[in-house]
Parts: sequence; structure tokens; C-alpha cells
Amino acid sequence: MKQSNQNWKKRLHEIIYEADTPAGKLFDVVLLILILISVLVVMLESVETLQSVYGSYFSIIEWGITILFTIEYILRVVTVKSPLKYIFSWYGIIDLIATLPKYIGLFVTRTEALLVLRSLRLLRVFTILKLARYVGASNDLIKAIKASKAKIGVFIFAVLILSMVLGTIMYIIEGNADSGFTSIPRSIYWIIVTMTTVGYGDIAPVTALGQFFASLVMIMGYGIIAVPTGIVSSEYTSVKKEPINTQVCNNCNETRHQYKANFCHNCGEHL
Amino acid sequence: MKQSNQNWKKRLHEIIYEADTPAGKLFDVVLLILILISVLVVMLESVETLQSVYGSYFSIIEWGITILFTIEYILRVVTVKSPLKYIFSWYGIIDLIATLPKYIGLFVTRTEALLVLRSLRLLRVFTILKLARYVGASNDLIKAIKASKAKIGVFIFAVLILSMVLGTIMYIIEGNADSGFTSIPRSIYWIIVTMTTVGYGDIAPVTALGQFFASLVMIMGYGIIAVPTGIVSSEYTSVKKEPINTQVCNNCNETRHQYKANFCHNCGEHL
Amino acid sequence: MKQSNQNWKKRLHEIIYEADTPAGKLFDVVLLILILISVLVVMLESVETLQSVYGSYFSIIEWGITILFTIEYILRVVTVKSPLKYIFSWYGIIDLIATLPKYIGLFVTRTEALLVLRSLRLLRVFTILKLARYVGASNDLIKAIKASKAKIGVFIFAVLILSMVLGTIMYIIEGNADSGFTSIPRSIYWIIVTMTTVGYGDIAPVTALGQFFASLVMIMGYGIIAVPTGIVSSEYTSVKKEPINTQVCNNCNETRHQYKANFCHNCGEHL
Amino acid sequence: MKQSNQNWKKRLHEIIYEADTPAGKLFDVVLLILILISVLVVMLESVETLQSVYGSYFSIIEWGITILFTIEYILRVVTVKSPLKYIFSWYGIIDLIATLPKYIGLFVTRTEALLVLRSLRLLRVFTILKLARYVGASNDLIKAIKASKAKIGVFIFAVLILSMVLGTIMYIIEGNADSGFTSIPRSIYWIIVTMTTVGYGDIAPVTALGQFFASLVMIMGYGIIAVPTGIVSSEYTSVKKEPINTQVCNNCNETRHQYKANFCHNCGEHL
Repeated sequence: MKQSNQNWKKRLHEIIYEADTPAGKLFDVVLLILILISVLVVMLESVETLQSVYGSYFSIIEWGITILFTIEYILRVVTVKSPLKYIFSWYGIIDLIATLPKYIGLFVTRTEALLVLRSLRLLRVFTILKLARYVGASNDLIKAIKASKAKIGVFIFAVLILSMVLGTIMYIIEGNADSGFTSIPRSIYWIIVTMTTVGYGDIAPVTALGQFFASLVMIMGYGIIAVPTGIVSSEYTSVKKEPINTQVCNNCNETRHQYKANFCHNCGEHL
Repeated sequence: MKQSNQNWKKRLHEIIYEADTPAGKLFDVVLLILILISVLVVMLESVETLQSVYGSYFSIIEWGITILFTIEYILRVVTVKSPLKYIFSWYGIIDLIATLPKYIGLFVTRTEALLVLRSLRLLRVFTILKLARYVGASNDLIKAIKASKAKIGVFIFAVLILSMVLGTIMYIIEGNADSGFTSIPRSIYWIIVTMTTVGYGDIAPVTALGQFFASLVMIMGYGIIAVPTGIVSSEYTSVKKEPINTQVCNNCNETRHQYKANFCHNCGEHL
Repeated sequence: MKQSNQNWKKRLHEIIYEADTPAGKLFDVVLLILILISVLVVMLESVETLQSVYGSYFSIIEWGITILFTIEYILRVVTVKSPLKYIFSWYGIIDLIATLPKYIGLFVTRTEALLVLRSLRLLRVFTILKLARYVGASNDLIKAIKASKAKIGVFIFAVLILSMVLGTIMYIIEGNADSGFTSIPRSIYWIIVTMTTVGYGDIAPVTALGQFFASLVMIMGYGIIAVPTGIVSSEYTSVKKEPINTQVCNNCNETRHQYKANFCHNCGEHL
Repeated sequence: MKQSNQNWKKRLHEIIYEADTPAGKLFDVVLLILILISVLVVMLESVETLQSVYGSYFSIIEWGITILFTIEYILRVVTVKSPLKYIFSWYGIIDLIATLPKYIGLFVTRTEALLVLRSLRLLRVFTILKLARYVGASNDLIKAIKASKAKIGVFIFAVLILSMVLGTIMYIIEGNADSGFTSIPRSIYWIIVTMTTVGYGDIAPVTALGQFFASLVMIMGYGIIAVPTGIVSSEYTSVKKEPINTQVCNNCNETRHQYKANFCHNCGEHL
């Protein structure tokens, strides 16, 4: 009895967690399609003209998918070797978040929009489809971003303090003019809008001094936007070069070999 | 008879497809001028004030050029060795697209604007004028873009999922305020407008929380915009360095050797 | 007597200037919290709806913190070895600026907003928490920015002259249309708004020629924005590579050797 | 007589063209101040509120400076060895442009704004003040920009054709909605505003399909803006590295020596 139970668990585990068997592949494709439909429905539901016409269909589809996701979540917990490890893992939490808002929505309103968080499950597309090349590419990206974390942190901290100081100056300059700089936090918001070169134009200086100062801020922003770009390209370049540095030649101790080289490019020794 | 037919075909082929003879050069220059006139006329036609005055002239010019392009297309098909290969080639399809919309326009309205697709024919300028230097430059660009395809794909996929999640949060924050965040798709549109630092300002947050959250999104966009730039500059730098790889191993025909390598990194042969 | 006075000074100096003892750490954390509260209060005070309700509380908190900062400033001056050196140091000036505006505010209005300059004191977070890694990261940034100072200076100078010329041309083109280009300084402001890709939209061309010229300016701005980015990434990459220079020549004490050099490039000594 | 005439010319040439003597330095500084005053006056003149009050003062200052510039121009032509070479040189043309508009303004209106072109004379600041370091920096910039000319040319050509095609598609999508896409040229203008991430918001899509298509264009623009940045940083990095490649070691033929190295870093041979 226990044996067959074990077998049943093992087979389900293979279908749900792996994509090597035809059944496993089918499961993953169906899952992705369900996620896409679900996210699309939540989005369309928020459009009032569509909601008033197709609202009941949307509701049925969503409840159907929510129940399927709930069953899938329970099966994932049951079939995995260490359920707690899965539950508190990155994907475990996302899988739970994908079902909860609908149930909570029974009691509290406006939480159902959170169902769009289901789109995070789409990240699984990388692991499911074993897109090794893409995963490799994204690993490089993540490595570069991790390596530049400290520098980007310092940079953002400095930009925030600069925004506070500049925002206050702008508030003093334009505060009396009727141009939207009604408070310091709003002026700081405007400084960020300007320095990131977004520039909505909902708030814009109208006095001559304000426009002069705004020009200075923009030219400053010109130089500032170059900094994170410089950091990321520099880190990314060094991350990309890394695979070269692992082999050492026994003969001449040359270390900078090309990736996958069989022989030392300096003395011809077999690596 | 067949001989002279062959000769006639060969001469036309030289004029149409090559630019070495004076006749061929003249043909290409006339062609480019016709394309430019044609594109200009289609654009001006869409300006109502001009269309109401010069409409009939525009119509005559367009029909004239369309007929000339049709003749050119037929001659291209006739004179080329393998007509089918040309018809389904990149330039063959563009050449067809350059004439069709005008004829279809006889039956269906509003398709004539597609005649601007004729501007794609201008890409021929590179091959026609044998601008080797420019083509070389564009090849480098295309190589760099191709090399960074997978990474840019991963990046755009991640940005889209992030946009969905952030757009939903913004919809929850600003949905009740009268500031244009009327649905989730529209909020996602706003997130993309903001993160790419375009910032139209047609939709802009008005609540304090919304502006605070928008500031976070903008600073995030700061870092995010650095990523594709980093990828492209990194790839472009390595593509540019490639010409160094001129050595070929006599033993294993390996070509991708490291700069200044003395021995083949693949088989150990002295270079 | 003098001995105990000396001891008292020494202990206070340790608490205020260093963060190695528990008392010193506590002092620094309390200081940071007070700065944050103070900055927050000044910001909220500028929001009229909050000021009318909680104005008196804000006033009390601010005066309390100002008095504490004044006491701290006096203690810093008293306990330091060379008071004048501290007073005219970077942090000494910031510490003074953090207290003065409140006192001046008794006689002159609207200066209290300058209290946001207190946020500059937050920069102390780096030295206080001994965030060596972050300080290292910020040193790299500062070095790269310093190295690219001359080039960025030339670049901004050229951009300003270009803005003047382009702004004048735009003023001539759009000056008569009712589109906000009412004077040359305002047109220059618009050119800067456009070339930095901020694009508020408070001023935008309406004539066909103006929009054509604006398109040219934008495409130009495309290329121009690449220049500071290129400078900073290039400098940052070379700054980052510097740690390689660890070898010192025994003969001439030259330190800036090329990576993997076998001989000193200055005197020929074997390294 | 001729001797003294020659001497007089030589002394004037020294004062006007060189900055080594005290008189020459004084001349240059006075010239720069006059240019700055002149440019400032032309700008302020275009502000109507200032022009109506101080108009007559502005007019007197401008005529004074114009006459001084005319005298300077004549002296420059007279004292230089080959007057024609100067007249048709870059600075010669700018110097002429700095005086002409005022005289033409006597007969034709609205040309006086062109006097802002005088700001181009400020470029002389680099050569006058012998700012070797800054000139070096700007030479690097100019070299990098020249080296990337062909690639940037190809890039801009491709972007323009892309803009035409995308602009036409947007015109077809949004042409019927009341959102400003009234003609193809205007839609192309909008595409350029969007792809360069300027985003004025004077024209913005209102239909769902239009906003979806706009999102695609923006994300495309994300990748596109990375290309010129990549080109410039890559070229700039190679321009900066160039001084290294001039020396070749007589002993081992090593070529990649550090800038200003006295000995080969590979074999210790004196260079």
C-alpha cells in the first residue's frame, strides 16, 4: 500500500515539477496558458465597458482557474519531499499569492486586482521550458546587477539627498507662482520627474528664475543619468569576461585563457 | 533568336541589378529619386489643407510612379535567373508592397497610406551606391544587435512582467482619484511611458501616495534603462574587436584565436 | 583639575566623533533618527493641509531638535582638538547650516524651508556606520566623476552654446505662432528641455517647420546624450581597473605598472 | 617708413592673435566680456517686458559693440599675413557673422536675433586662454565623434525610415480619433518625440490599440537609444587608448606598451 502511494506521489512529482516526460510537458504548457488567460481576464475586468457586458463570464473563468490553481498548489505541497521548504521558497510564495486574493475578495473589495500578481508565475517559463540559453543570458544580467548593487545603492542615496535639497530650492523659487510647486514633497517629486528625464509637464516652472534653475537641473540630470549606465556596462563587461579566468597552464602559469581552450595559447601545453 | 533574347535579358539585368555601367547608375539614381518623390507625395496627401488644393496633382504623380514601379517589378522578375527566389526575397517582397496598396486602394479605402512603406525601398541606397564603408558599419551594428538578442529578449520579458505588477499597484492606488488610471491596461501603459522616461503627461498621478510611488518607479527606470545600453555597448565592443581573429590553425582550422596567441588553443599546433 | 577636564573632553570626543564604543554607536543612531524626523517635519510643514492642523506640533518638534543640534554643535567645537579646522570643514559647515535657518527664521520669513539642507547631514551615514564597502564604491564613483570633469566641462560648454544658437533659430521660426516661444531665453529653455529628452510639453512647436526642426533637434539630442554616458563609462572602467597596479618597482618606486608586466616600464628593473 | 609700418602691423598681430603678452591677454579678456554682454543684450531684447522699458539702452549697447567688432574684424584682416585664408577660415566666418546681422537689420526686420550667433565666438575661449587640458579633452571628444560618424549616419538613416513606417501605421490607427494624429508628417513627428523618449504629450494616443502600439514603440525606443550610446562609448574608449600603440620593442617586438614607458614591460629592453 505504502509502496503504491509512494509510486503515485513520485509520478505526480515528475509531472508537476519536471518537464522531461510528455505528460510533464503537457502539464506545463496547460499551466502557462491558464496563467495567461487568468492575467488577461483580470486586466479586461478592470475596463468598465467590458466588465459591464462580460462581467459574469469573467467571474466564471476566474473562479474556475482559481480552483485549478488551488488544487495544483495542494498537489505541489503533497508531492514534494520537504513541503515547508517549498512553501517558503520564492516560487512557493508566488504560487500561494496566485490563489489567495480571489478568496480574500469574498470578504474585502478591490483586492482582486492583485490577481495580476499571477503574472509573476510566468517567470517559470524560463525553468519550465529549459531555455538554457535564455537562463544563461538572464544569469549574466542578474550577476551584473548584483555586482553593481552597492554602487547603485550609494548612487540612489546621493540622488535622493540631492533631490531633497534641489526640491526645496525650487519650492522657495516657484512657491509663490501658480505653477504647482505647492509643497516641498511635491517639488521633490518634480525634481525626480525632471532628473530622470521623464518630464510629465503636470508641474512646470513659469518664472524666469525657475526656468533657469530647471535648465541647470536638467543639464545636471544629463551627467547623472550617465552614472548608472556606466556602472552597469562596466560590471556587465567584467561578468561576461569571467569564464576565461578558470584554467591555469601547468607549464607557464598563464591564466588568461580563452573560454573552452584545450591548449595554452602561450606555450602550447595541454590544459 | 533565343541568343538575342538572352542578350537582351542579360543587358537589362545588368542595368537593373548592377550599378557598374553608366546606364545602371542612371537607372538607380532615377529609381531613388522616384521613391523619394513618391514617399513625399503620400505624406503631403495626408495633410488635409494640401490635399484639398493639390489633390488631383498628387493623384496623377502617384499613379504615374505606381505604373513605373509595376513595370520595374515585372522586368525584375523577367530578367532574374530564378524569379521565385527573387519574389520571396526581402527586397522582392518590399518591391511588391511598394506597388500593391495603390491597386487595392481602388476597392478598399485608407490603404493608400501604406504606400509610405515604399520608404523601405530606400534601404536599397546602401547596396545601390556600393557604400562599402557604410555597409560595413551597419553590419557591425546588426551583428551587435543579433548577439544581444537573447539578453534583450529576457530583459524585455522581465520588464513586461514588472510593468504588469507595478501597473496593477498603481491602479489600486490612483484608481479612485480622477487622474486617468481608469483601468489596469491603461495603468500598464502609464508604467511603460514612465519607465522608458518618455513621460507624456496625459496621465499623471495626483495623490500624494501615487506621486511617491511614481518617484520610486522613475528611479527604478533609471537603473533599468542602463541595462540594454550596457548590453549593446558590451556586445558592440566585442563585435568590433573580432577582426583580430585573422589567424587560422593549419591543423584543425580553428579560427577564433585569442589576440597574440602563439599556439592554437584547440589542438596545440604552433600558429 | 585640568586632568579631569581633559578626560571629560576625551570621553565626549570619543562618543561624538567615533562609533567604536556602545555609547558612541547609540549617539550616532539617535543623531540619524533626529535628522530624519527633522527633515520629515520640515517637508510636511510645507503641505498646507497638514500645517493648518498639526502646525503647532511641527513647531515644537523643530525647536526641540534645533536646540539639540545647537548643543551638539557646541560640544563638537569644544571637544575637538582644532576647533577652527572643524568649523571650516565640509561637515562643520553643514552642521552649522543645520541649525542657523531656524534662528534666522525668527526675523526673516521663508528661510525655514532651508532646514531641508539638514538632509545633507545624512551623508554622514557613510562615515558613521563605517560602511567600508559602500564608501569604497562611492570613492570609485567620485574618482570616475573627477577624472571626467574636464571632458564633461567642455561638453556642457559646447551644449550651452549650441542651445543658444538653436534656441534663437527656434525663436525665429515659432516666434509669431502662439506656441509659447515668446522670447529667446524661453526658447533656449525649450531647447534644453528637448535635448535632455525631458520634454515637459508646456512649450511645444505647432507650425510644420517648427515640428520638423524640433525633430532634428531631438535626433541630435539622441547622439548628444550618448557622449556623457560614453565618457563616464569609459572613465569608470579605467578607475575600476586601477587596483591591478599592486606591484612597486624596487629600483624607482614606480607603481603604475601594466597588468602582468615582467619588467618596470620606467627603469627596466625586473619586478 | 615701410619698416615702421611692418612693426606696427606685427605688434597689432601679436595683441590680437596671441595671448602671451600682457596687452594680448587684456585684449582677449575684454573681447570675451564684450561678446558675453552682447549675447546677453540680444537675449534680453527678445523679452517684451524688458524691451519696452530698456529698449533704447539695449540699442545703444548693441550698436557700440557692433562698431567695436567691425573695427576688430578690419584689424584682423589687415594685420594677418594671408587675409583671404583668415576670411574663409572657421573663425573668420564667425567673426563676420557676428557683425553683419546688425547692419542688415537696418533694412530687414527680425534678423537681429541672429546676433546670438555671436555666442559661437565664445568657442574662442578654448584657444585664447590656452586651456591645453580642455582642448585635449575636446579633441578626444571630436575624434570619438568623427570615428563614429559613419555608424551614427547609418543608424540615423535607419531610424528615419523606421519612423516613416511606424508613423504611417500610427496615422492609420489613430487618424480617426480626435488625438492630434491629423497627418502622416505629424505622426512621424510624434514617433520621433516618442522614440527619443522626449514625450511632450502635445499629441498622445487615446484609443486602446493606439496606446498598445505606443507601448511597443517605447520599448523599441529603449533598445534603440542604447545603440548610439554603445557606439560612442566604444569609439571613445579606443580613442583614449590610442597613445599606447606607438612604440615597438626592438628585442621582442612587443607593441602594447604603456603610455610614456621607457622600457619594454615584457623583456626589459630600453625602448
